[in-house]
Amino acid sequence: MQQARLDVVGIGNAIVDVISSVEDAFIGAHGLNKGAMTLIDSATADQLYDAMPSGTEMSGGSAANTMAGIAGLGGRAGFIGKVRDDQLGRIFRHDVGAVGVEFTTPPADGGAPTARCLIAVTPDAQRTMNTYLGACIELTPDDVDADVIAGAQVTYMEGYLWDPPQAKQAFLKAGQIAHDAGRSVALTLSDGFCVDRHRDEFRDLVANHVDILFANEDEILSLYQVDEFDAALQIVRAQVRIAALTRSAKGSVVVGGDEVHVLDAEPVDRVVDTTGAGDLYAAGFLHGLTQGRGLHDCGRIGGIAAAEIISHIGARPAVSLAKLVADRMD
Amino acid sequence: MQQARLDVVGIGNAIVDVISSVEDAFIGAHGLNKGAMTLIDSATADQLYDAMPSGTEMSGGSAANTMAGIAGLGGRAGFIGKVRDDQLGRIFRHDVGAVGVEFTTPPADGGAPTARCLIAVTPDAQRTMNTYLGACIELTPDDVDADVIAGAQVTYMEGYLWDPPQAKQAFLKAGQIAHDAGRSVALTLSDGFCVDRHRDEFRDLVANHVDILFANEDEILSLYQVDEFDAALQIVRAQVRIAALTRSAKGSVVVGGDEVHVLDAEPVDRVVDTTGAGDLYAAGFLHGLTQGRGLHDCGRIGGIAAAEIISHIGARPAVSLAKLVADRMD
Repeated sequence: MQQARLDVVGIGNAIVDVISSVEDAFIGAHGLNKGAMTLIDSATADQLYDAMPSGTEMSGGSAANTMAGIAGLGGRAGFIGKVRDDQLGRIFRHDVGAVGVEFTTPPADGGAPTARCLIAVTPDAQRTMNTYLGACIELTPDDVDADVIAGAQVTYMEGYLWDPPQAKQAFLKAGQIAHDAGRSVALTLSDGFCVDRHRDEFRDLVANHVDILFANEDEILSLYQVDEFDAALQIVRAQVRIAALTRSAKGSVVVGGDEVHVLDAEPVDRVVDTTGAGDLYAAGFLHGLTQGRGLHDCGRIGGIAAAEIISHIGARPAVSLAKLVADRMD
Repeated sequence: MQQARLDVVGIGNAIVDVISSVEDAFIGAHGLNKGAMTLIDSATADQLYDAMPSGTEMSGGSAANTMAGIAGLGGRAGFIGKVRDDQLGRIFRHDVGAVGVEFTTPPADGGAPTARCLIAVTPDAQRTMNTYLGACIELTPDDVDADVIAGAQVTYMEGYLWDPPQAKQAFLKAGQIAHDAGRSVALTLSDGFCVDRHRDEFRDLVANHVDILFANEDEILSLYQVDEFDAALQIVRAQVRIAALTRSAKGSVVVGGDEVHVLDAEPVDRVVDTTGAGDLYAAGFLHGLTQGRGLHDCGRIGGIAAAEIISHIGARPAVSLAKLVADRMD
């Protein structure tokens, strides 16, 4: 097998986040699904935006956040996703490039505008996400560059790709190319509602196409429709080579073959905004893995990266993750 | 004189800020004027943006920040400025409206895109601003609504309006309408380089058209080309009804008729980003003034609002200014 050119290539929805702080009453008044990611159409996006307080725009997207995290940790990351050739698309392209992520997917030159996610952050630091997919629906298998996929140790994909109609085909194509090249395929289940929308397909995917699975407790319980974390753990062990299951303040559980690691959450002074916690856990974990570290260390690096991201607003790192991990892992 | 419908209407450049944290070396490497606002053309904006780290977008613009501050303090504020009908223009319109500022200037439906200011924040919390004026150059006297101006206690304008060619005519028209209606005209000199560009016109303006002047130490020294703060103070006293001169950590000096107040800076735990300090000082001051408070209290409210804004990234308030001032002014 050839030397890999990239550590990880991520495929995901290319989204600009619009983040506003709201009171709890806002969530109820607008019928939002607190803590979840809900898909909204263009008209609903306009209405909700009109109602939201003044905001801050930051590039986001789950897999893109993860790739930014890997680059911030010193890894070599690439991204495949679709923006339009508009102002928000330019912002997305700039930001992912500025942190060192390779992003060569051509923008759509017509059709829907670049996707945005209207995020309402409540005083309890939860984020309620409302995504207008926009140009993301234009991502097709043609956007999957076989050389990029075959040249990456891991191809990482977000479950959210099952929402835009053709993106899942792009995912399946990429997974096939990766496996044919002897590479690994990783998936995050993204969120519990996303699992609800696509449960049967996700079960098949996990059983037959995925080597490394990321999920939080909600998502893994939903996937196997069980009530107890341990029950889900026993099922998933048999399905994938590695599963990294995050449990918020309870830390994470990592299983791989005979190995099981139960890791405490890293300390955080104050949880400000949980947006991106799972994305950055995956970044830390995959960076560890592609650097040849053991599963225990991969889980810890994931926890450190997640702890950083929830200590401030936004889902991209605010400090050097590479330095932070070097300090903490001594 | 009729009861005023608004406390203050601001006229200014409608700008979206793109804020990135950089090391000091970045400033030198790109030949930027540290701490100042420099005008750049479209090509330079593209080049500089390409070089900048991943950023955060927030609505800005000096006078617009001041109006947002007044609304946040519980005052009735309006804004006149020009965006294009593009994504950044929509963001600007949303954000200024969301805090309760009336903004009815129609967007340009062609020509240059909405203005943006590329802001590099160095570790010493200084901001170096590079502004591409874009659609701001389309602001003309036709955009000045006489009813809005005549219905506001104070018309507040930023010196930066002297950069786009027709905006100054809009300012002069507004000033005339305000005075004819028995209202007050306020001006901020904006920054030292702006004073350099327009010194003669600014002197005439201050002497003949302005009732209330805001300036920091650099700006007032530059306006009168003197070396000592006190020298500038003696000159400006004779020129305007009220002058509020800010001196960063040294606080502010307020003069009006026989009154002189020398106010200490409000305490700040940690200065994170000085963007908007002057804008929010003006907001607090004008809010006090339009609520009928004395000059001492106006200066203190300005100082409290400025202290809040420099304790975090961005030039729009992160907490309720009304509550903050109520707590501090007890």
